[in-house]
Amino acid sequence: VDVRGAILDAASELFAARGVDAVSLRAIARRAGVSPAMVPYYFGDRSGLHAALLERALGRVRAGLAAAVGGASDGPSAVRGLLRTLGGAIAEAPWIPSLMLTEVLADGGHYRERFRSTYAEHVADIVTTVFRREISGGRFRAGLDPRLTLISLLGLAVMPHLARPVLEPLFGLPYDSSEFLRRLEEHTAQIFLEGVLAREETPR
Amino acid sequence: VDVRGAILDAASELFAARGVDAVSLRAIARRAGVSPAMVPYYFGDRSGLHAALLERALGRVRAGLAAAVGGASDGPSAVRGLLRTLGGAIAEAPWIPSLMLTEVLADGGHYRERFRSTYAEHVADIVTTVFRREISGGRFRAGLDPRLTLISLLGLAVMPHLARPVLEPLFGLPYDSSEFLRRLEEHTAQIFLEGVLAREETPR
Repeated sequence: VDVRGAILDAASELFAARGVDAVSLRAIARRAGVSPAMVPYYFGDRSGLHAALLERALGRVRAGLAAAVGGASDGPSAVRGLLRTLGGAIAEAPWIPSLMLTEVLADGGHYRERFRSTYAEHVADIVTTVFRREISGGRFRAGLDPRLTLISLLGLAVMPHLARPVLEPLFGLPYDSSEFLRRLEEHTAQIFLEGVLAREETPR
Repeated sequence: VDVRGAILDAASELFAARGVDAVSLRAIARRAGVSPAMVPYYFGDRSGLHAALLERALGRVRAGLAAAVGGASDGPSAVRGLLRTLGGAIAEAPWIPSLMLTEVLADGGHYRERFRSTYAEHVADIVTTVFRREISGGRFRAGLDPRLTLISLLGLAVMPHLARPVLEPLFGLPYDSSEFLRRLEEHTAQIFLEGVLAREETPR
């Protein structure tokens, strides 16, 4: 029996259903059908469990991004593939943004270094390579900085999820609706692509 | 003597110089020239001090945004004024993103409700009003959702600062350089405005 995997599956399901803060390690063990002592045995403390969850989920995202970008015929397809991969991962594991906040972005985040070395560097390489190619090929605007452009795409794609605790009640947005998430993804793709694609300067 | 204000000034300066997590309440009291007991007296716990810092800083940002947007002659000027106000606030109080993470966005954030009621609702009103006007006037693309467009601008403008702990070492970005911050602001303005401005469809 894969006890470690069962605990991760249980944590993922409970976090998705109830939110990270509302789920005890004891409840996770119960759902996994293992002794409560197995959680600290495999993961140390709660941060260790969070790090392992992020590691597994982001490993899949990274593979998905590489496939989506590698299989894209042009820059816009690569961007749309990237957004679809990211959106799919968050729909499946809606706790990713919350754990990113506490374990990567917040001071003292336990997964920050590992996130950078096993994930961020790799993804940044994949995406900035596409952007450089599109800029030098004249399809993205000349003069765009590939790294700042990646940061812009990151902000457009991820911020709606990081700021969900404020935005959902503020605007009454239906984050649990897959139709809304598709609309948000399409909006994001349009803003970004209109923002970077080269074109004749003919504003109305 | 304004003891409360002196403590807030001291905290703001120390947080800016050393980072939020590296500064003790005792060090703040010492710098403010007050007894250590004054900090809990005025602010309760550390979260209370953080909330008061955010309240003061964001009050200034909100006033600055209202002035910048109200004084702008068109949509692009309003967007540039908004970005300049936000960038100026973060340059002056570089701890804002870190406190936003822990006190607003993270689960259990103590300032979340107050942020929404005293700040987010007001700013959202100001900015979506401009966007609605620009869309109905045909200067921003038809079909843009004003609220999703605000979220996009927020992501473009704020994410580079929220993700600084990852991005700064990853790309070696000089966040302490005002020249870099100006370049980032100009990049952000361009991506967003190219992304929203209506134009003849003539991609190269």
